[in-house]
Amino acid sequence: MEASNIPTQARPDDAIVWRDGRLFLLDQRYLPERAEYLELKTASETAQAIHAMVVRGAPAIGITAAYGVVLAGVAASRRSTDGWQSAIQADLDKLRQSRPTAVNLFWALSRMEALIGQLSREGDPGDALLQEAMLIHREDVMANRRMGESGAALIDADTVVITHCNAGALATGGYGTALGVIRAAHGKGMIREVLADETRPWLQGARLTAWELLQDGIPVTLLADGAAASRMTQGDVGWVIVGSDRIAANGDVANKIGTYSLAVAAKHHGVKVMVVAPTSTIDMSLPSGREIPIEVRDADELRYCGGRQVAAQGADAWNPVFDVTPAELVDAIVTERGVVCLPDEKKMEKLMIS
Amino acid sequence: MEASNIPTQARPDDAIVWRDGRLFLLDQRYLPERAEYLELKTASETAQAIHAMVVRGAPAIGITAAYGVVLAGVAASRRSTDGWQSAIQADLDKLRQSRPTAVNLFWALSRMEALIGQLSREGDPGDALLQEAMLIHREDVMANRRMGESGAALIDADTVVITHCNAGALATGGYGTALGVIRAAHGKGMIREVLADETRPWLQGARLTAWELLQDGIPVTLLADGAAASRMTQGDVGWVIVGSDRIAANGDVANKIGTYSLAVAAKHHGVKVMVVAPTSTIDMSLPSGREIPIEVRDADELRYCGGRQVAAQGADAWNPVFDVTPAELVDAIVTERGVVCLPDEKKMEKLMIS
Repeated sequence: MEASNIPTQARPDDAIVWRDGRLFLLDQRYLPERAEYLELKTASETAQAIHAMVVRGAPAIGITAAYGVVLAGVAASRRSTDGWQSAIQADLDKLRQSRPTAVNLFWALSRMEALIGQLSREGDPGDALLQEAMLIHREDVMANRRMGESGAALIDADTVVITHCNAGALATGGYGTALGVIRAAHGKGMIREVLADETRPWLQGARLTAWELLQDGIPVTLLADGAAASRMTQGDVGWVIVGSDRIAANGDVANKIGTYSLAVAAKHHGVKVMVVAPTSTIDMSLPSGREIPIEVRDADELRYCGGRQVAAQGADAWNPVFDVTPAELVDAIVTERGVVCLPDEKKMEKLMIS
Repeated sequence: MEASNIPTQARPDDAIVWRDGRLFLLDQRYLPERAEYLELKTASETAQAIHAMVVRGAPAIGITAAYGVVLAGVAASRRSTDGWQSAIQADLDKLRQSRPTAVNLFWALSRMEALIGQLSREGDPGDALLQEAMLIHREDVMANRRMGESGAALIDADTVVITHCNAGALATGGYGTALGVIRAAHGKGMIREVLADETRPWLQGARLTAWELLQDGIPVTLLADGAAASRMTQGDVGWVIVGSDRIAANGDVANKIGTYSLAVAAKHHGVKVMVVAPTSTIDMSLPSGREIPIEVRDADELRYCGGRQVAAQGADAWNPVFDVTPAELVDAIVTERGVVCLPDEKKMEKLMIS
């Protein structure tokens, strides 16, 4: 992967940029200290970038993979004058294997594969694939704006909210899911305070959520992940608002590790839990959260902080990237198709067939 | 404060060293990367060291303050041939104001002040004060060994335990409170696994707890603070075992921020909570946890990690150092006088008058 600075200001809404036939990703590993773009020239580089968390956030992973398929299609049709649909398979597999939990990845690949199946084996599929990828990108932003309104409508005036990880512009095509709701509610004057868990080990809260909210003039106060429960005892927190990487058929929610801890604390204090996610995050093929594959990453991510080893040498570390919040702890799932209150299997089915 | 390396190996049991009329503290801000001792030559330097968290952990703060009083007494009697008991007051105040939450600080100062009141105004009080400080130190270690046995007796075979912060040798005169129980239970073969919350923002878990347990050949697995709840769903965690900085008359427990979150999660999963603390940590003058003063420290402690700024510029941060776990969430308070199960005001009173 080459580091190549686009001479534009890095904006949260531009985590993923397709420009002049080229794919650029804002490198989220180094935000906010450095705001630099990487160019991804092949599907293979794109898959590596997803795996390395250059881009992260379930919807953003899906959109990025879609652009990766465009790169794959262009390359495949250059390599083989007919049969690009076979030649492209290896690249599709690389993209598919980049990370296991966010179902939006597989949803986006399936959508691109459906198009691949419909296109002619001759000619250059690039334009058609690009149109679909850009549509996926645009639809995501429109979905976020719709969810922002629906979610904000659930929030009373003068509410303190807690969010976790980064479910914002940086995690999506733009605007954000959980942060979209927070932006919309803040715009209506309904939010008294936004609290953000710093979200160890990757610190998406401290680095990414704080960065993008402050860019929009929305003040944010960081919490150590273990402090949220204590903060809730003050009695003024109304909602926990988070995104999701995969929602099962019964409404169980997989999201960044620490979400379940927050939901358990919320239940204990009568704080409500709102999960904001497009239907591309819902996986009706899995009956419950138990079936959601939970990525585990290298122990060093937890042994390190701020780029240095902080843990004692020889310490093991458990580093699951996600946890599962059972539907019983969720008050509302906000999607672009509608809001499911107190989700269960029946209600999820109704949402998905509507 | 001068950095001066004692030419001995830094051991967890030697967080506080009085040697040849000099006071040395293992600098816990830089463990485990650097294991260096600072010499504290005056009570004022000692108070600053406590405030800066060169030494931390409630019992260790008390013991250190007691040695600080020795330095104060020696200095006061040199400055004023009679009336050293007046001359010493300013130093006692500095020590008293070093940190507000750990009641062991005030308990130790009261004990030293009681002795000061009994000594002659002439002569050198140094030896008498030193004897008392060393007795406080020794009693703490003996109390820890007794609590280690009592606490270990509550633990069934093959148990997974979670601990938080560092309530070990480094936090006490030696051996540790929560880690004393873990050491004793591990020695009996009762512990299947020790899990340690890394404990942001100061990372006492990752840096200190992991370091001292590994030194004793006890394997430890680190958790992000938000991951403990998810780990509990596996069904094999038996106990959360922690120390305390102050326990109120009704059994409410103040401890490192994140303890309350762990206790709420424990309740949700049927995991038991054991608080291990000497009676010098109990403050019967406070009816409940609501009255315990909770230190709040600089927001930068949360904005930084591993020595660098990780949070977006302009982010505020809430940094209370402690939280309060209500007695209802505590299964056992283990003290050197006895174990209080399901603590309440009556039982605490019974413990303290026995």
